[in-house]
Amino acid sequence: MDLGPLLTESDAKIVVVLLDGLGGYADSSGGTELEDASTPNLDALAAAGTSGRAEIVGPGITPGSGPGHLALFGYDPLEFELGRGALSAAGLDVQLLPGDVAARANLCALDGDGKIIDRRAGRIASPLAVPLVERLQEQISIDGVEVIIRHEREHRAMVMLRGDGLDPRVGDTDPQTTGVPPTRPAALDPAAERTARLFAELERQTHEILAGERANGILLRGFDTLEETPGFGDRYGLNAAAVATYPMYRGIARLLGMEVLRRPEDVQDQVALLRESYADHDYFFVHHKATDAAGEDGNRDAKIAAIEQIDAVIPDIMALDPDVVMVTGDHGTPPQMEAHSWHPVPVLLHAERGGRDSVTRFGESFASQGMLGLRRMSDIMPILLACAGRLKKYGA
Amino acid sequence: MDLGPLLTESDAKIVVVLLDGLGGYADSSGGTELEDASTPNLDALAAAGTSGRAEIVGPGITPGSGPGHLALFGYDPLEFELGRGALSAAGLDVQLLPGDVAARANLCALDGDGKIIDRRAGRIASPLAVPLVERLQEQISIDGVEVIIRHEREHRAMVMLRGDGLDPRVGDTDPQTTGVPPTRPAALDPAAERTARLFAELERQTHEILAGERANGILLRGFDTLEETPGFGDRYGLNAAAVATYPMYRGIARLLGMEVLRRPEDVQDQVALLRESYADHDYFFVHHKATDAAGEDGNRDAKIAAIEQIDAVIPDIMALDPDVVMVTGDHGTPPQMEAHSWHPVPVLLHAERGGRDSVTRFGESFASQGMLGLRRMSDIMPILLACAGRLKKYGA
Repeated sequence: MDLGPLLTESDAKIVVVLLDGLGGYADSSGGTELEDASTPNLDALAAAGTSGRAEIVGPGITPGSGPGHLALFGYDPLEFELGRGALSAAGLDVQLLPGDVAARANLCALDGDGKIIDRRAGRIASPLAVPLVERLQEQISIDGVEVIIRHEREHRAMVMLRGDGLDPRVGDTDPQTTGVPPTRPAALDPAAERTARLFAELERQTHEILAGERANGILLRGFDTLEETPGFGDRYGLNAAAVATYPMYRGIARLLGMEVLRRPEDVQDQVALLRESYADHDYFFVHHKATDAAGEDGNRDAKIAAIEQIDAVIPDIMALDPDVVMVTGDHGTPPQMEAHSWHPVPVLLHAERGGRDSVTRFGESFASQGMLGLRRMSDIMPILLACAGRLKKYGA
Repeated sequence: MDLGPLLTESDAKIVVVLLDGLGGYADSSGGTELEDASTPNLDALAAAGTSGRAEIVGPGITPGSGPGHLALFGYDPLEFELGRGALSAAGLDVQLLPGDVAARANLCALDGDGKIIDRRAGRIASPLAVPLVERLQEQISIDGVEVIIRHEREHRAMVMLRGDGLDPRVGDTDPQTTGVPPTRPAALDPAAERTARLFAELERQTHEILAGERANGILLRGFDTLEETPGFGDRYGLNAAAVATYPMYRGIARLLGMEVLRRPEDVQDQVALLRESYADHDYFFVHHKATDAAGEDGNRDAKIAAIEQIDAVIPDIMALDPDVVMVTGDHGTPPQMEAHSWHPVPVLLHAERGGRDSVTRFGESFASQGMLGLRRMSDIMPILLACAGRLKKYGA
């Protein structure tokens, strides 16, 4: 429902600690990583507060990072979307502005006739690819637009045009096969004809600048522009700040209009940053990446360690005396799967008005007995706002 | 949500064991039939897997067989419908094809002026009604259409016309009272005028053929045609097979485009059939009718025995090593009510990635503590697909 008419002012502070990919599942060999981690501080918080579980998109649906964070911030991910281009840009710490057109790029190898020999230039190593992409960034020059090119990893890069009158309705240039030249950028709508010509010029100059290199061409796909998502601050009347290390999550917070604080060094520095800026904001998004990274690596012990790393700083966070604290995940990343998963994530809520249940440990199976129940993640945000005294009564 | 864009291939096999009318409720005299049955094999499966409960249509809503099975197969029964005509036909093992128009028929008694004396011909006994219906099937002949007439039970029958240009928008001919003639079949839409005339001709011939019999007329209601429901296979990318004994459930599976395997003799034969065809399909719907029949009879002991009958073959099913196994019901049939009921049905899920919870027995009260939670039945299907590795990530 639209919370707008119910919003009211409050001094209460909300701290959301997001352990990326926190969720897991028990199997015959043991409990989930969270259940088997030693988390005395989170357990104490669970004992004093209330627990539950949340599904991000829907039953059985595995979320990407975009839907995962949208849901966390109270946006139904079936209704709202962060475009791939915007997320790619976010992941490179580049801000996609309204009107920009971004595409994902592969460096490729072309023969003397301009036909594709290898669509990924032999998966060229990053150290070799970086100087090539830097050279493109320095030398490409196209009248009327700014060109932004960033290396991602190996043969992958992002290309962005910034200027007036651009249109993302341009067809992919990657023919998905070898022995043929790259497809000419085609306007899928008459309004995109100039944009298609500009990207064709970008390809031409790339070919010229990289002549003689092993990676001497570029393939473009997924042309995208910013899809405006209503800002988090306006939506909830909050002055929000992101305490995040990784570009992707800093970028998502920025796309939603949060203030993105300086890049912290590590978890301790995240807590220091939270403390420094505590007076200036009323909602803090603290993002912890290590849980997801460990799960993706299939490293159960590392995921447990990453959870325990957060547990260790819980007392420092609680020392700030936040009114509303939530600890949760944005999806599962079970080490058994080495990938994101659909399993409901545990939710721990600690707030004076949040209630207390009989759950005394933080973990999926414990949380399944908690009074928050099993919910859609986007339904948790109104509960946080209510606990913060930020929602008026509905109806007379 | 539309799962189509998320579907992907997998070799995993899904086996769904459906105990018709499984659900029940505990009262002052004891637990539910499932709770009080001796089910060591189902309990072991529950202990190794995860449990929950499902509501079929919505809170307090008692489902018929159509909605019960639609929900089981992942179709929201508030959005999709299997028409009564289609279900009637299914129950008689007759396939309703696109364009066919079926109606439910009562044999009735008419006086010399053609006025109704008894709308059910004194609830004529089946042995007396069968030869009358067979005579109608043999002798009725209408230009341009095929006529299919099947006896159901006592005075009840089904009448179907098959041919081009038929339209089901025809008004009931049963005036719901005596002392008046049957209502003339009326076209409720100009497009149905010919169909109404054809059914009027069918009535006229019936009256002629049955002249002098105790049941000498026919009343028609519920004119219906096939409402095409998107096929199960296309919807989920599955090659599904039904292992079912009763015509109604074989018919429902057929309406959804599943392959309906030969009619098994009994539960042991169902398992044999599952084994025989195990290599050829990736989704198996195993239907067990005896639980529902016993519940309808108000026979608690028989329902318990019917549950134990399935428990006994669980090891044989698990010996096939299916990747995803679900055991559940399509609605409650509490012997206390001798009818279908709205009570949530227990759900048992056993799959490598399905998780494991603290529930160690299969039953309503135990399942209420399980990690699957309380869900809509149609939301279970995406979880089965996820466990089978058949759903890609949603969003970047």
